[in-house]
Amino acid sequence: MENGSKKWAFKGNKALEVADAISIRGVLNVLNDNLKGNDNTKTAIPLGHGDPSVFPCFQTTPIAEDAIVDAVRSAQFNCYSPAIGILPARRAIAEYLSQDLPYQLSPDDVYLTAGCNNSIEIIISVLASPSANILLPRPGYPMYESHAAFNNLEVRHFDLIPEKGWEVDLDAVEALADESTVAMVIVNPGNPCGSVFTYQHLKKIAETARKLGIFVIADEVYDHLTFGSNPFLPMGKFGSIVPVLTLGSISKRWIVPGWRLGWIVTCDPNGILQKSAGIAESIRRYCNISADPPTFIQGAIPQILEKTKDDFFAKIINLCSQAADICYDRLKEIPCITCPYKPEGSMFIMVKLNLSLLEDIDDDMDFCLKLAREESVVVLPGVAVGLKNWLRITFAIEPSALEEGLRRIKTFYNRHMKKQ
Amino acid sequence: MENGSKKWAFKGNKALEVADAISIRGVLNVLNDNLKGNDNTKTAIPLGHGDPSVFPCFQTTPIAEDAIVDAVRSAQFNCYSPAIGILPARRAIAEYLSQDLPYQLSPDDVYLTAGCNNSIEIIISVLASPSANILLPRPGYPMYESHAAFNNLEVRHFDLIPEKGWEVDLDAVEALADESTVAMVIVNPGNPCGSVFTYQHLKKIAETARKLGIFVIADEVYDHLTFGSNPFLPMGKFGSIVPVLTLGSISKRWIVPGWRLGWIVTCDPNGILQKSAGIAESIRRYCNISADPPTFIQGAIPQILEKTKDDFFAKIINLCSQAADICYDRLKEIPCITCPYKPEGSMFIMVKLNLSLLEDIDDDMDFCLKLAREESVVVLPGVAVGLKNWLRITFAIEPSALEEGLRRIKTFYNRHMKKQ
Ligand SMILES: Cc1ncc(COP(=O)(O)O)c(C=O)c1O
Ligand SMILES: Cc1ncc(COP(=O)(O)O)c(C=O)c1O
Repeated sequence: MENGSKKWAFKGNKALEVADAISIRGVLNVLNDNLKGNDNTKTAIPLGHGDPSVFPCFQTTPIAEDAIVDAVRSAQFNCYSPAIGILPARRAIAEYLSQDLPYQLSPDDVYLTAGCNNSIEIIISVLASPSANILLPRPGYPMYESHAAFNNLEVRHFDLIPEKGWEVDLDAVEALADESTVAMVIVNPGNPCGSVFTYQHLKKIAETARKLGIFVIADEVYDHLTFGSNPFLPMGKFGSIVPVLTLGSISKRWIVPGWRLGWIVTCDPNGILQKSAGIAESIRRYCNISADPPTFIQGAIPQILEKTKDDFFAKIINLCSQAADICYDRLKEIPCITCPYKPEGSMFIMVKLNLSLLEDIDDDMDFCLKLAREESVVVLPGVAVGLKNWLRITFAIEPSALEEGLRRIKTFYNRHMKKQ
Repeated sequence: MENGSKKWAFKGNKALEVADAISIRGVLNVLNDNLKGNDNTKTAIPLGHGDPSVFPCFQTTPIAEDAIVDAVRSAQFNCYSPAIGILPARRAIAEYLSQDLPYQLSPDDVYLTAGCNNSIEIIISVLASPSANILLPRPGYPMYESHAAFNNLEVRHFDLIPEKGWEVDLDAVEALADESTVAMVIVNPGNPCGSVFTYQHLKKIAETARKLGIFVIADEVYDHLTFGSNPFLPMGKFGSIVPVLTLGSISKRWIVPGWRLGWIVTCDPNGILQKSAGIAESIRRYCNISADPPTFIQGAIPQILEKTKDDFFAKIINLCSQAADICYDRLKEIPCITCPYKPEGSMFIMVKLNLSLLEDIDDDMDFCLKLAREESVVVLPGVAVGLKNWLRITFAIEPSALEEGLRRIKTFYNRHMKKQ
């Protein structure tokens, strides 16, 4: 073979292209490139993703920092950890989650992960098989779709209904499920919708899933981040009706998404996941070959979960609640945007774009690209979460930056509105 | 459907069973269970895996701990990181590795990972496609086989030759490769063999790979951990002959395997991986949907790489060198064990078991199970790394514990030797 004319066998990875194309990171990268190339000098305002940690008012509690520092200084946690995580951390998470459940979790119900995204990666990889399918919400959190695409797991979407506070369309769930359906996913408190499900609705989800013979995967990464009339209730409350796999992390409640510590928990007092279905065994196997969270972060978990004071949580919820109010009120003043639901939890609002009121905007992606370029404001096009011509806006940022961002969206509307 | 008679669609994950069955963790779990169930009261001696961090003499440098503490206390690194890692960390790694290369790496050559195991996961997932194959060394590090099995990537094994200092059988490589071969893997310094390749051998590997049109994946997780006549030379030195993907981490050199920070680096001054082959793009895509190392550990990397003193590295190498001497000398006194090669790097020695000198031992696994039960010493059966009836023994533990472990292996031999 000649030197210059080498043919390399690797030709790119198609499954990966598909998986990445639907990732939020992929879309945000495009928008951020637009930001860099723009011609204004305004500071960028990040309303595109859920990470308020860069704003001083959202800084984590010193208790969490101390826990990490103590764990590092102890030199007890430099070693490899067991694949599913060290016992004290799993025990602390079992205790923490059991506080809101009618039964006691055991440390053996808990699998540590490198954050909730890693929990999703593990659970989807474990469930994937050529003939299986999974039911996902629309709009949703596209990391599920990405991993399903990469692992060749068929996805079927059920709608969340904006007029009903973004509740699950359970008739659709029943119509979609068949004997190859392994599970349905709910995200509560909701991303991207900011919804918080009632006791009654969660119970109906459990009963429907039981009837269909499918597990519920409950993504509760925004657990306790609620500020409306519905309190946060874990899906695990209904674990005796249907086996629940609860996914979570410290990312959101402690405002430390960069720390990468999460979990998968089997909320299943009847032991179905451990015994008959063999899913617990498969999760353990996957953990043996996949990334662990750093041992010293695991070592810090008992202190973080047990010592964090309620006033820290209250402060964060207060900030989010205020920010949600500001966001909802200001958005209502922008004619091309409709808000079907005022968020009661998480960090996001889903709003509808009325393109007929805009002159030169093709769709949600075009809106977001031009907004980034002209106003240095990043918001996520709804298409990235499954609803074309909607927008997902994060309100969990420093309130004055949020106000400024919303002002700029209004300015943007004024410049692009259709002249009668 | 009746309540009790629920049929769950999930039936276990076959690919995962295969992938896990060949993992070192899987085998060590079995041995450790044997340890727990045993009837003696001896302290366990872990000669089964490469993690000396639990021994005080192998404690990491305070400089590394300080770097973590500073990063946490700065509160600058609580946020999500970019998928491929933060720039200062990628720049520091590019600088660090360039010291040993004839050209300068750019930060864009560096992808941060959650440790070298995660680097393996990423690279194998990216390369996998139904028709492709990859060439792996035997004996080897089975994480490659596990991920290949899970991702349906065909594996072809070439031998390492004990009589030639565990060099690669390059004739076998040539015979195995075809137009679907995407890459070959080398581990240097070697796990499980403790070998360190010469300049001449590395160059020949590069030339062979170039001739065959395949990349070289160079697992250099034990970089600089050498104490024999051959110095450590990075495969990247030959990156202008053939594109090299270098995998590494801070796990071994800094004795912090629990910190989970590693890298994939394209050592490829001709830019083949970036341009024609599209592999860099695929790695970026995979990073978008997979686990990142915690941001504050990334934030600590510049300080860790730039400030660690040579005397710390020298101390660790000294300890490993002494331990390798002890191990080699004591093992030679045990008749049923043959050591074809005295280790010159990494933390392991590969030795052959002569079963004909033993009375009631079926094979290497049986040897290891009984050794764990009777003597509380854990060593890895060769079958776990691809060579049946060999043993992989870690010498990188505290020297007196090592002596005690080797004494117990001798006692074990004396009890089980065949009586003439
Ligand atoms: C619904 C949902 N699940 C999971 C995650 C990932 O969380 P983590 O930071 O713990 O990986 C997010 C992050 O935004 C999310 O919104
Ligand atoms: C050859 C080889 N590669 C990779 C690894 C994994 O290293 P890390 O701790 O960085 O994941 C090991 C660990 O023992 C190894 O021996």
